[in-house]
Amino acid sequence: MAFNIEGNKALKFKEIGEFGFIDSIKEECITSLKGVIKGIGDDCAVFGPYSGRVLLFTTDMLVEDIHFLRDKISPYQLGRKAIAVNLSDIAAMGGRPLYCLISLGIPVQMNVELIQDLYKGMKDICEHYRVNIVGGDTVGSPDKFIINVSLIGDAKEDEVIYRSGARPGDKIYLTGSVGDSSVGLKILKNEISPPRSMGSYFLKVHNEPNALIETGRIIATSRLASSMIDLSDGLLSDLGHICKESSVGALLIRSKIPLSSELKLLASRASFNPLDHALSGGEDYLLLLTVPEARSQDLELLFKDKRPSPLYLIGEIRKEEGIRMLNDNGSVEELGPKGFNHFIS
Amino acid sequence: MAFNIEGNKALKFKEIGEFGFIDSIKEECITSLKGVIKGIGDDCAVFGPYSGRVLLFTTDMLVEDIHFLRDKISPYQLGRKAIAVNLSDIAAMGGRPLYCLISLGIPVQMNVELIQDLYKGMKDICEHYRVNIVGGDTVGSPDKFIINVSLIGDAKEDEVIYRSGARPGDKIYLTGSVGDSSVGLKILKNEISPPRSMGSYFLKVHNEPNALIETGRIIATSRLASSMIDLSDGLLSDLGHICKESSVGALLIRSKIPLSSELKLLASRASFNPLDHALSGGEDYLLLLTVPEARSQDLELLFKDKRPSPLYLIGEIRKEEGIRMLNDNGSVEELGPKGFNHFIS
Repeated sequence: MAFNIEGNKALKFKEIGEFGFIDSIKEECITSLKGVIKGIGDDCAVFGPYSGRVLLFTTDMLVEDIHFLRDKISPYQLGRKAIAVNLSDIAAMGGRPLYCLISLGIPVQMNVELIQDLYKGMKDICEHYRVNIVGGDTVGSPDKFIINVSLIGDAKEDEVIYRSGARPGDKIYLTGSVGDSSVGLKILKNEISPPRSMGSYFLKVHNEPNALIETGRIIATSRLASSMIDLSDGLLSDLGHICKESSVGALLIRSKIPLSSELKLLASRASFNPLDHALSGGEDYLLLLTVPEARSQDLELLFKDKRPSPLYLIGEIRKEEGIRMLNDNGSVEELGPKGFNHFIS
Repeated sequence: MAFNIEGNKALKFKEIGEFGFIDSIKEECITSLKGVIKGIGDDCAVFGPYSGRVLLFTTDMLVEDIHFLRDKISPYQLGRKAIAVNLSDIAAMGGRPLYCLISLGIPVQMNVELIQDLYKGMKDICEHYRVNIVGGDTVGSPDKFIINVSLIGDAKEDEVIYRSGARPGDKIYLTGSVGDSSVGLKILKNEISPPRSMGSYFLKVHNEPNALIETGRIIATSRLASSMIDLSDGLLSDLGHICKESSVGALLIRSKIPLSSELKLLASRASFNPLDHALSGGEDYLLLLTVPEARSQDLELLFKDKRPSPLYLIGEIRKEEGIRMLNDNGSVEELGPKGFNHFIS
């Protein structure tokens, strides 16, 4: 069978999407159990141990016109962001980032200076987090610019936090306000047109995400969390991953979902519902974690003491599958695991 | 500076190429020395050690219309090859492959079945070499199909073979006949049109490369080699990498360059010089190694005994920089480090 057969009746990738596809290929990926602690299904793969430490292994691909528009982000910001989204996966496991490989697919007509600026952004964020760029692959690309980063980190074996540990009764926390990045993307695409002074905040959140390595380390070393994930697909979608891997459901409290003052102001001016962005926006790169009720006060005290990030209690893990929302009037509504699919166009 | 500024006076990527680019960004990639044994500049990065073993880390990106044409390779073959080219980098260090991550950039209109066939090819070769697929990233792509594989392997610290250990007087060996893959590529592009019965051999070599893991392991555990690399860019180019990293030159013996009987036959029929393909062809995925003269007989005996691959003595490392060729008439000619640049179009 040749590769270019694209029959009309056949199932297309866009019809099953990323998660349907992953489910369809998950089988038979582990051929030998040597050292695999976690394969497909978390923010990082985990293997080892090596003298009590395990290694964390993650990768992310960014493709032009899907994940970024060349004229809407500077090369420096793009390089920084390509590393940050991988760091965020290490943060979500509670790990310490160590080594990365960078593959670039470069349109042959692209200026070398722009790629060097991209590298400057990569090197600066790597230096900040003491990550070494140890190699990569540099190839041509017919038209679109492509970046793939692979990152290795480590942690003590008993520090690592998986998606699968949430239990009914656990409290759900978020380390920052959600939805701003998604609004930034809408502004990039001219779907929201705020006054310039208001827009720059959202663009910065979207183009210059943080990687909450320090926050992740503080949570990991405290050993208080039962599960954790980074928010990349959107709050509902990522909470859905925790629920799926932990075989539980969740109840969110509408009034507790943290929204920035900037988002509330713009939403009232531009007449949109800020909660849509907060729940399904994507690319927040915050940490979403669950903590057993008995230990939730310890977590709150820890954050008050060390202040690595803000901390918001937003709901509770429930036994019943599915994600529900407690509205301000006391009614409860069912929410689908709607998320962001990373497709700009 | 926005990303889409492509001034006419600026240096383009195609003008400096992969190796010029890598030289330009190599600085400042290592920000912290923790555990880095080898960064940019070999087939794999090397870090550790962990209880006497080091980890090997490599990545390769394949982009449609640059590295493959969708209607000239089956999805199964492409999946297999994407893993094989990474395995070859682990083989070149003498390592044992362990864990891989697979990033796919998938055109939304592509049939799911084709991607599943691609995965079948990946899983089969991974199973053969006992490699675990532990995760990845699956994203959309506007038009071209993109595959990036990252692979981790390991070896005992003192087994690892680098590009930098070649010394004047060392013998140069090759583990198979060269140039067939390059002829396969020319056939794919209709630049050579052999009779069908002859063509299929070359297409198979090009589309179904082997990964010489076992050969690499036998060489590594023997501790006989002073340097090693896998042939991906072409014999001259890859020997040039060994010479550069070892600060030496080389003399090749024209009559000793191993050519398959198929290549000799087709070259005589189609009137081309088979040595052009052998020296500069690319994608051979064989091992090129150097061995101190005093130990070269041990290596030959080892290969006679264990037969992991053929073994050909093709020349000698020299003190003088540059690669030279001893012709059949006794004359010596200077060869540039011309190689294959992986650009199909």
